[in-house]
Amino acid sequence: MDKIIGIDIGGTKIAIGRADVSGNLEESLRFPTNVTRGYKMILEEIIENTKGLFKNQPIRAIGIGCGGPLDSKEGRILSPPNLPGWDDVPIVKDIRDIFNVPVYLENDANAAALGEFHFGAGRNVSNMVYLTLSTGIGGGVIINNRLVHGVRDSGGEVGHQTILPDGPICNCGNKGCLEALSSGTGIAKRFRERLISGRDSIVKTWVRDISNIDAKMIADAAKLGDTLAKEVWDEAIYYLGIGISNIITILSPEMIVLGGSLTKYGDDLFVKVKEIVKERVKLVPVEEIPIVQAELGDNVGILGAVAVGLLGDER
Amino acid sequence: MDKIIGIDIGGTKIAIGRADVSGNLEESLRFPTNVTRGYKMILEEIIENTKGLFKNQPIRAIGIGCGGPLDSKEGRILSPPNLPGWDDVPIVKDIRDIFNVPVYLENDANAAALGEFHFGAGRNVSNMVYLTLSTGIGGGVIINNRLVHGVRDSGGEVGHQTILPDGPICNCGNKGCLEALSSGTGIAKRFRERLISGRDSIVKTWVRDISNIDAKMIADAAKLGDTLAKEVWDEAIYYLGIGISNIITILSPEMIVLGGSLTKYGDDLFVKVKEIVKERVKLVPVEEIPIVQAELGDNVGILGAVAVGLLGDER
Repeated sequence: MDKIIGIDIGGTKIAIGRADVSGNLEESLRFPTNVTRGYKMILEEIIENTKGLFKNQPIRAIGIGCGGPLDSKEGRILSPPNLPGWDDVPIVKDIRDIFNVPVYLENDANAAALGEFHFGAGRNVSNMVYLTLSTGIGGGVIINNRLVHGVRDSGGEVGHQTILPDGPICNCGNKGCLEALSSGTGIAKRFRERLISGRDSIVKTWVRDISNIDAKMIADAAKLGDTLAKEVWDEAIYYLGIGISNIITILSPEMIVLGGSLTKYGDDLFVKVKEIVKERVKLVPVEEIPIVQAELGDNVGILGAVAVGLLGDER
Repeated sequence: MDKIIGIDIGGTKIAIGRADVSGNLEESLRFPTNVTRGYKMILEEIIENTKGLFKNQPIRAIGIGCGGPLDSKEGRILSPPNLPGWDDVPIVKDIRDIFNVPVYLENDANAAALGEFHFGAGRNVSNMVYLTLSTGIGGGVIINNRLVHGVRDSGGEVGHQTILPDGPICNCGNKGCLEALSSGTGIAKRFRERLISGRDSIVKTWVRDISNIDAKMIADAAKLGDTLAKEVWDEAIYYLGIGISNIITILSPEMIVLGGSLTKYGDDLFVKVKEIVKERVKLVPVEEIPIVQAELGDNVGILGAVAVGLLGDER
């Protein structure tokens, strides 16, 4: 049976794996990106490690997931903020030249969505939206079994819809984005701001410096009944519920899949989000649209890249 | 050359027309729905009038646009609020039994989107979102040349995304929907509320009863420099800009098409909406996504239905 290689390129680490067409990961490895080395040296390490996974295996294709902006059709990476110096690099050609198999490139959030769609929670539907809730909020939209790539591969930026028109400034430059309100970074920032303005919380006793407070601590404190933590956490889930409601209202997909570290904290996240969605969405039969936990866990990066390679031009 | 019949069924009037495959309307007629007559009598009048358009013509298919809820696959209309008594009526079968050609049914907003996509402003793109700005705000989403039907034909409810979480109650039951803020009805309501709370406006001198104030008057007064009218109109356009920004952020379509009566008032609507979109959307190249006026005008209902008939199962 044919095998597929998935390469997941991040600013901190790179993960490479070999899987069969059912998404069973047979072998994988990770190494630090060390971005300061620059594209050429990093590419060499990617190629060396990929060679190791290739040995005596019937490799059908290679899929690559990487932070955007990028040009998925041309197979070029276009100066992503987390990979300094990767300015218009032809990674697909560079890797294809070595291995002589089809190579495909996709935005990492879209690749993850495709992974959950093909191998994970969405494997039985044709229309789904994936959100990854982590330090940021990314995602991908699948309609009629295909990724919505959008203009210049910019589709699926579900974390940057405006939820509060006069809300906090987002990293993207807009105000009141879902990401500014409900991402791990957004939650921690809002919590710290209220501490600075004089509010109290048990979390203050857990850290030496409040800049070390993260979303997990806030979720833990909320579970312990801490008033401020509960307030900030509940607000974040409320806005997340509105963001998901908007997606459902516009697209009425068959399923919403939530992944990322935040879905592991506060075990009532799914219950609360569903309550808000039920309250907000009146013209779509939400009771028929499951909102579920992603299934690929920490392997979503590699398996997303594998799905990109497996589905190729049919994605 | 083959011809297509389009039937546009509304609660007030029904329009039927015959067009060629390029969307040239050759003949059309309109008659009042008179909903109190009930389904059977209205169906008879539809059939009689359709027979008139059929004579000696090579009719390939019939398309029907109608307010939802409906089941487009089964061809049944399911108790729409504006057609009392149309409870699970098999309109596709009833019309096919008479004319023996393929008959297709679609939600009216989706049909209009398909009309603009195939015959109008969107004829050169594969991905577009259509919004109709009128007494309400409806729309339709086209991805990869197909309508996003959604679960139970509920896709494309772009007017019911939440823009202001604590905003005014919407007709749908949610709070702060785009429709509650930026539709003709929403604008007039917000304007009246501020009059009642003591604000003044030239519009008060134009009507005997403030319940007769409509969005056109407010747009006209805004153009004349009326402070309150300008304030309410600008707010509506601001929220509309946010709604369109959200759609662009999530889907990154090739084009946004705006139709409906509101696009004819306030001639700076497109300019202002584009400004807001440019301010809000940071991760999608908005300068490459035209926001344009719909092209089918008053014929969008019939031509939307024609597009439904023409594209049939390929829509």
